[in-house]
Amino acid sequence: MYTVVPIDGGVCAPEGFFADGVAAGLKPENRKDLAFIHSDTLCDIRAIFTSNRFQAAPILHFKKEEIERTNFVLINAKNANAMTGPAGIEDIDLILEHARANFREIKNPVMSSTGVIGVRLPKEKIMKGLEGFDLKAKDPDAAASAIMTTDSYDKQIAFEVRLESGDSFRIGAMAKGAGMINPAMATMLCFITTDAAVPADEMHPMLRSCAATTFNAISVDGDTSTNDTVMLLANGKSGVFHREAFLFALEKAMHELALKIVSDGEGATKCVAFKITGAANDEEATVAARALSNSLLVKTALYGEDPNWGRIASTIGASGVTCDPATLTITFGNVTVYRKGEILFDAEQEEKAARIMRKSAFSIHCDLGVGSGKFTAYGCDLGHEYVKINADYRT
Amino acid sequence: MYTVVPIDGGVCAPEGFFADGVAAGLKPENRKDLAFIHSDTLCDIRAIFTSNRFQAAPILHFKKEEIERTNFVLINAKNANAMTGPAGIEDIDLILEHARANFREIKNPVMSSTGVIGVRLPKEKIMKGLEGFDLKAKDPDAAASAIMTTDSYDKQIAFEVRLESGDSFRIGAMAKGAGMINPAMATMLCFITTDAAVPADEMHPMLRSCAATTFNAISVDGDTSTNDTVMLLANGKSGVFHREAFLFALEKAMHELALKIVSDGEGATKCVAFKITGAANDEEATVAARALSNSLLVKTALYGEDPNWGRIASTIGASGVTCDPATLTITFGNVTVYRKGEILFDAEQEEKAARIMRKSAFSIHCDLGVGSGKFTAYGCDLGHEYVKINADYRT
Repeated sequence: MYTVVPIDGGVCAPEGFFADGVAAGLKPENRKDLAFIHSDTLCDIRAIFTSNRFQAAPILHFKKEEIERTNFVLINAKNANAMTGPAGIEDIDLILEHARANFREIKNPVMSSTGVIGVRLPKEKIMKGLEGFDLKAKDPDAAASAIMTTDSYDKQIAFEVRLESGDSFRIGAMAKGAGMINPAMATMLCFITTDAAVPADEMHPMLRSCAATTFNAISVDGDTSTNDTVMLLANGKSGVFHREAFLFALEKAMHELALKIVSDGEGATKCVAFKITGAANDEEATVAARALSNSLLVKTALYGEDPNWGRIASTIGASGVTCDPATLTITFGNVTVYRKGEILFDAEQEEKAARIMRKSAFSIHCDLGVGSGKFTAYGCDLGHEYVKINADYRT
Repeated sequence: MYTVVPIDGGVCAPEGFFADGVAAGLKPENRKDLAFIHSDTLCDIRAIFTSNRFQAAPILHFKKEEIERTNFVLINAKNANAMTGPAGIEDIDLILEHARANFREIKNPVMSSTGVIGVRLPKEKIMKGLEGFDLKAKDPDAAASAIMTTDSYDKQIAFEVRLESGDSFRIGAMAKGAGMINPAMATMLCFITTDAAVPADEMHPMLRSCAATTFNAISVDGDTSTNDTVMLLANGKSGVFHREAFLFALEKAMHELALKIVSDGEGATKCVAFKITGAANDEEATVAARALSNSLLVKTALYGEDPNWGRIASTIGASGVTCDPATLTITFGNVTVYRKGEILFDAEQEEKAARIMRKSAFSIHCDLGVGSGKFTAYGCDLGHEYVKINADYRT
């Protein structure tokens, strides 16, 4: 038995972690745009990355250096350092060399970037900016703000996990998301710190299994970026490890951040859980749930608060999964509008369903009635703000 | 040798075909909503349908009746008769029985529908409406208007094909499209008439092969409807058949209607050809081209006239096809912005590319540089109008 208690402190909540954010001139109006996470002892670090074939330079750099232990992660917003070729990787080497020259305690530094694709990093600004870092600062809010792009609020979480034995450990995290969020982990960055004594060889499998139901279950616009990254840093300072409790807390942290990201989807006004049950298998449930969370017609109907269940049905039918109108059941919140061939959509039901849709968070549940596969995907609506933000993102 | 001459007359251009549209009260404000196509002799008819697993009642009815020869097609807008179960098919039987009772010359009638999913057909309105048909009317414009849903203009085409021998035949067509258009032939209906003496067993393969590069190459929003249908009616009245000329004219008719549909995508202001060359094979080229035409981030950048080539690259990378930043070349119109690892995107090139994007039709060409596969997909931008139209479609 264990209890998981929400605490403050974001990535600085676990013992021995420091973080801050500064304005290096990448964003206008002196907004923070350059962040670091530092641990006063070396951490084990593992990461999972985008499935995009054009992985950005920071990802290629991380893999090339085969970094497994570090005490410093540098993160910039506004420029993704993607599609920049070998020069993009050299830029990272220069920047991190500069960091090491300024702070001799830094070992095997790691860099992560988000922003516009296809433009070289403004090296000088970043190098000048990091000179002002105070590695003993504990300002997780500043770090979480600095990594934002089109996010409208910062995304942080931290838990203390208390075991029955009286031992405890902590886990903290920050993320950025907003547009371009897709089941395959689109432009989102997430940095998780912990003082739990996690065995290094278990970190990667744990990240993968938690991502499947969290970051890989969310969608804002179906696009997958070149930069998506989830990093886990473990410095072992608590001396405590409890596999089940740690996995629970990691999944919980990633799940809550994933929901924060989808709720903050560009221009989104609603966060919707698309729950599929009764699919032929879990894979088909995943395909159907993701199809719903990515459908433009479904997303605009959500925005219009229109319980257009026909679009839900049509999208499931178009997804290619095993399904049959005679076994399908569609429920908005607790209002069933279609049950196994029977349309239950009179004026009264429509008003009830519309009332559900006016909420800022609700579920749409489709039971396919052909097996026992299940998956829940999370998505948001698509409205005028999305178009406005994305029609002219670069300017 | 043969010449293909554009002519007027739409579906009534070929000899022996009649068509009209009336207002049956399905659309508001007495707008036309019920159309027919009639041939004064029996036609061979073949059709290709949506890949959606929830095919609408008219499609299920057509397959159940195994109709291969007919002289009457009835088409209604505003109601898709989809997800209506066995009752939806019974409704069609009743309506077509009523048509036969009113017009004794009707044989093996066919019905086609488009509109809202999940609502029973207003049978009485349709039956009353068809009573007013004049089967000898030749008003292709009225028919083409009646089948429109969110289309902003009707879509018709007709050609006379003149052979060197002095013989000729004609082909005519009408279509409706607008939203929900996807490579797998989403809510689009297309009816093609011809007086060519096409062998019945060649009709289906010809439709399929022409659809691959026309209706299956276009996308408005990536959603695939329950009702997509392309029908070819051939009454053989010209007594003429020339395989190569017919196939050319059929492909040309379908291609031009497909471009009309994508140009009239809901709220669309631009029609863009996404041309992929140098892919590992044609299948991968198709995947990459369709990914571009369906990407929300690409579509909103088109709307914003923003030559954001990073989103083009990222979308290709996310599509999963074989590709490499070192072999990729991206060109807007005739302006190359990225060539095999080199970014050619200075202020001057950006302005040139932006000028291309301000046109109402242009191409974006990506050479993947890894093979000889190619495919061109057609898509449109996504702007505020799309959101407005789809947020509240049913009301």
